[in-house]
Order: sequence, then C-alpha cells, then structure tokens
Amino acid sequence: MSVHLPTILSAENIRQRQALIRPYLKKTPLLQSEKINALAGCNIYFKCENFQHTGSFKVRGAFSAALLLSEEERKKGLCTHSSGNHAQAIAKAAQILACPAYIVMPENAPAFKQRATAELGAEIRFSPPTTAGREAALAAWQKETAAHFIHPYNDYDVILGQASCSLEILEELSDIDGILAPIGGGGLLSGALLSAHYFRPELKVLGAEPQLVNDAYLSLAAGKIIENKRTDSLADGLRTTIRPKTFGVFQELLSEIICVEEEEIILALRLIWEQLKIVVEPSSAVPLAALLKHKARFKGQNWAIILSGGNIDLDHLPF
Amino acid sequence: MSVHLPTILSAENIRQRQALIRPYLKKTPLLQSEKINALAGCNIYFKCENFQHTGSFKVRGAFSAALLLSEEERKKGLCTHSSGNHAQAIAKAAQILACPAYIVMPENAPAFKQRATAELGAEIRFSPPTTAGREAALAAWQKETAAHFIHPYNDYDVILGQASCSLEILEELSDIDGILAPIGGGGLLSGALLSAHYFRPELKVLGAEPQLVNDAYLSLAAGKIIENKRTDSLADGLRTTIRPKTFGVFQELLSEIICVEEEEIILALRLIWEQLKIVVEPSSAVPLAALLKHKARFKGQNWAIILSGGNIDLDHLPF
Repeated sequence: MSVHLPTILSAENIRQRQALIRPYLKKTPLLQSEKINALAGCNIYFKCENFQHTGSFKVRGAFSAALLLSEEERKKGLCTHSSGNHAQAIAKAAQILACPAYIVMPENAPAFKQRATAELGAEIRFSPPTTAGREAALAAWQKETAAHFIHPYNDYDVILGQASCSLEILEELSDIDGILAPIGGGGLLSGALLSAHYFRPELKVLGAEPQLVNDAYLSLAAGKIIENKRTDSLADGLRTTIRPKTFGVFQELLSEIICVEEEEIILALRLIWEQLKIVVEPSSAVPLAALLKHKARFKGQNWAIILSGGNIDLDHLPF
Repeated sequence: MSVHLPTILSAENIRQRQALIRPYLKKTPLLQSEKINALAGCNIYFKCENFQHTGSFKVRGAFSAALLLSEEERKKGLCTHSSGNHAQAIAKAAQILACPAYIVMPENAPAFKQRATAELGAEIRFSPPTTAGREAALAAWQKETAAHFIHPYNDYDVILGQASCSLEILEELSDIDGILAPIGGGGLLSGALLSAHYFRPELKVLGAEPQLVNDAYLSLAAGKIIENKRTDSLADGLRTTIRPKTFGVFQELLSEIICVEEEEIILALRLIWEQLKIVVEPSSAVPLAALLKHKARFKGQNWAIILSGGNIDLDHLPF
C-alpha cells in the first residue's frame, strides 16, 4: 500500500525527537504477569507509562513541543485546555523549562487533578465544561499572555513525542508480534503506528477503544470524523474525539480498532491491579480488555500493551 | 559491642543462600518518588517486594528452606499454617519444586488469600483462628503426611532467605544511611540486620511496627517475649508475635523500633499508591509512616524502605 504522511512525520524526526526529550523522561519498565499470560493464552509485555513523570505518557508530547520553542517564545509561556493528564504534562514541562503555564480546566475537572496541576506551579482558570467553553476561555487568556498553545494531540510535534514510547518498546523487545494502545485523541496510537511503520514494518499495531466513546472506530469506518455523542465512559482519558492530524495518520496506517464494553474495562483494570500490583487508570485497561475479548487471535503470540497512565481518584474506584 | 549469633547465621551462609534461591526469585526494583522525597525531606528508595513472586518477600524464605531438603524429604511435601503471604509462598515453592503443599489456614482467612493459595495447587485445611487451633490442625495433618514444616519466621533457614532482600539493596545502593523494614514475626528485619551486620556494619537498620500490635517493641524493652493482646491492626501481615529465633537476632543487633498509629499507616499507604503508582498492602506502609513521623531524624539522608508485599483485597480498601 502506498502511504502518504506529512513530511514532518519522518523517521528522522522521530529519532531526533526521542533524543531531544529523553533526558526529561523516566525510562519506564516493561512488566509481565504469569497469571495474566496464562489467562490470555499469550505473552504480554506491559509498558508502564503510569510510572512516567506526572503519571502518564503525556509528558513525552509536552516536552517534544515545548523544547522546540525559542527562548523568547518560552518566556511567554505554555498554554492548553485539559481536564486531565495533558494539563499536568504541560505544567511539568513549564516547571522544568522555567516558564509559565496557563491551563484552562473545565469547572467539573476532578479535584485531585486540579490539585496535581496546581502543585506543579501552573496557573489555572476554569471554564464551562463544553469544548466551545474551553476553547473560548483559552483564546481569551492567550490574547493576554501570547503563550504558546500545545494541543493534547492534534499537533505533529506532540505526535512525534508520543512516538518515543513505542520506540522504547522496539528497542527493548525484538520478538514481539504487535503493539496494542488505547485511543483517546489518537496521539499515543499515532506515535505507535509511525514507529512501527518506519522501524518494524512487519509489526501489527492495533487500537482499543471503549464502545461508549468509539469515535475513532466510527470515523475510520465512515472515512470522516464522527464526534462522540456520549462522554461517560469510565475511561476518562479516552472521552475526547479524534482530530484531523491523528485521523490522517490512522487513515494511512491503522488497520483495525477493537471496541470494548465498560464491564470488560473494569475486569481488565482489576486484573492489572491485582496481578501486576500497579495503579493504572481505567484508560490503561482498555487494550488488555480488547485482547482478552479476542483471545484466539492473539494465541501464542508476543504483544506489547501500553499502559497509558496511572492517575485515578482513590476515593472513587470502579470496583 | 560483642555480638553472639547462632553459628548458622553466618556471612557465608547468607551469601550461599542468596546464590541458591536467586534463580527462583524476581529481581525487584528500587523505586523513587520526587514528591515523597520532598514531603519526607530525605531521599528514599523503595524496595518493591510487592512485585516478587506471589506478591511478597515470603518466597525468599520459603525457597531457602525448601531447597535444603533432600529429594526424599521433598517428596513428602511442605506444610505450614498461615492466613497470608507465607501460605502462598510455600504453595509456590512446592509447585516449582514439584512436591505437595499442605496448608492450614484459619477459617477466617480472607477469601482472596484462600483462592490465591489454592490456585497454586496447595491442599488447604481450615482450623479455628487461634494459634492453638492452627498448631493442633497442622500437627494432626503432619502425622498423616510426614511433610516438612516450614515456620513463617521462627526458622533460621527462612531468616537466611529473607536476608537476600537486603543484600540486593546493598548490592545496588552504595550510599545509603540505613534500611527501614516492618516487623511482623521479625524474619524480614532479622535478615536486614544480619546483612548489614556482616556486609555494611556502619548502616543503621530500624524496625517499624503498628502501635496496636507492638509486641516486638514491648519485648525488646522487657527483655523477654511479650505477646500481642490485640490483633486488629490494619497491617494484617504484622499481627503475629515475635518468636525466640527472631527475638534473639533483635536482642543482638536491633537498636530501635518506631511504632506508628493506624491513621499514620493509612496516610502512608495512600501516599505510596498515589505517588509510586503501585499496589502495596498496609504492612508495607508502616516503615514510611515511621519515617514521616520522625522526619527530623532522617533529614537529608538516604534510606531504603522495604515494601514487604502487595496482597490486598481490592474490595476492602482502607480509604
């Protein structure tokens, strides 16, 4: 198949970006569980981005975009709108690079996420929880500050940063058959697709999405972006809708998305906590849920699953 | 000070035992958290035995004792009484060494621990939850089977095995000021005390114990074993009472035990889950609670804390 990608999404840029951001990242481990392997009938390596700085892979993209800015641009600060992990990632990048961070959070963002973002030194303003409300609040604030807006995923610099996660998997594992990643806005999976495309083209890369917010699945089938009608999946990191830049990568490189039910996510989440002894958020459990739903297809194979993050309110666990 | 230890607890035996059991163990990581360090005012390395096989350090002692048996003895099987992590450890050692395991569990042992032990192929019998009831049930069963009894801690072979945990810390960290470990029956801490005594004598080694079940603290003060009157600490792994073999090591080598309240354990537990993103059981949080209670004493120093295990019922979390 002939693949058409924007020039910026090149093998060289992926490599360069990885070298650029590496000093700012933790090397996250690949964990395994005998019990989960026995249950799944295959050999799974879990890439633990819950151990990454700020508890999710999002710092990869945040640093990737922020480090490209000039001294002058950085002084004006970074800004974004986010209720979740991207907010903390931008706040962290700004803290390390010693520049201001302006974060618009929806007024219904969980208190523990507000606190974590504020603790990193970011300035926070609240907006109505709608996309329009968030964007309007950010635009007004950006007018005051002239800060640089880093979108959580509809940004090639962010996508190039997220690719470093899969690149680390490829560096460590020479024998895997594929990578499974969750889909929210599509940045993490875009990075995995690009890494495999350039550096291990025989690798299968699949996406996993909650049935309740399966905008990427529907969009891929329709050939155009379909918005989520509901946003109440337990996997709060995956409620956002895919945007043109990630959708473009999906259209070129993604062969399949597996959708899973909420109950399947809860079962997989609990399995990860109990067997791997790690704290991950519901979004992280979606790929394992997908694999367990289609065991026969993965039988006897070696797969890497990206656990995207570990930020969860311990006062409101789903089990 | 002149130290009198049983001949079997020698530097050479600790080294030999470590080499013997190493192939059966996971190499558990040392994790750090910037936030916990900032909060504590010192630099803490967490030794993650929650990631060990069966979710606790107990397999170290189980393999250490089981591997010494002759082929003939092994055939007759391993037996013990335990409601918790030691039961799983013996079951695991028996499974790997292909011999029977006979485990007496108190009838009030949590269902998830019964299940985990049974899944490892052990035979289980239930007894009244008292020490006398457990011991009587085991004695009767041992008469039938002639299986080898491995006590959870009042056994020098077990203590030698637990020493491997601290030895791994010493191998990896050349610059620490001390090691903090929780005290249940005292096996884990005895191992730490012995490792430091022989291989890093300048190291401080402290014990941490829940105030509610502080039999070791009281025993050390009284110069004789004082039984726990209560057994209702949240730290279920630490409810047992110290016995002569571990008490003997404590009397020779232990300078101090820090006692903590139940509320302090819960706060430390939550901090570990939230910041390290790992699942540990309440017993594991006791040393961090002790350190946070006496911050000034640890200020600016480097300490290792042993997280003893990660077996907790997710349906009954204390927060």
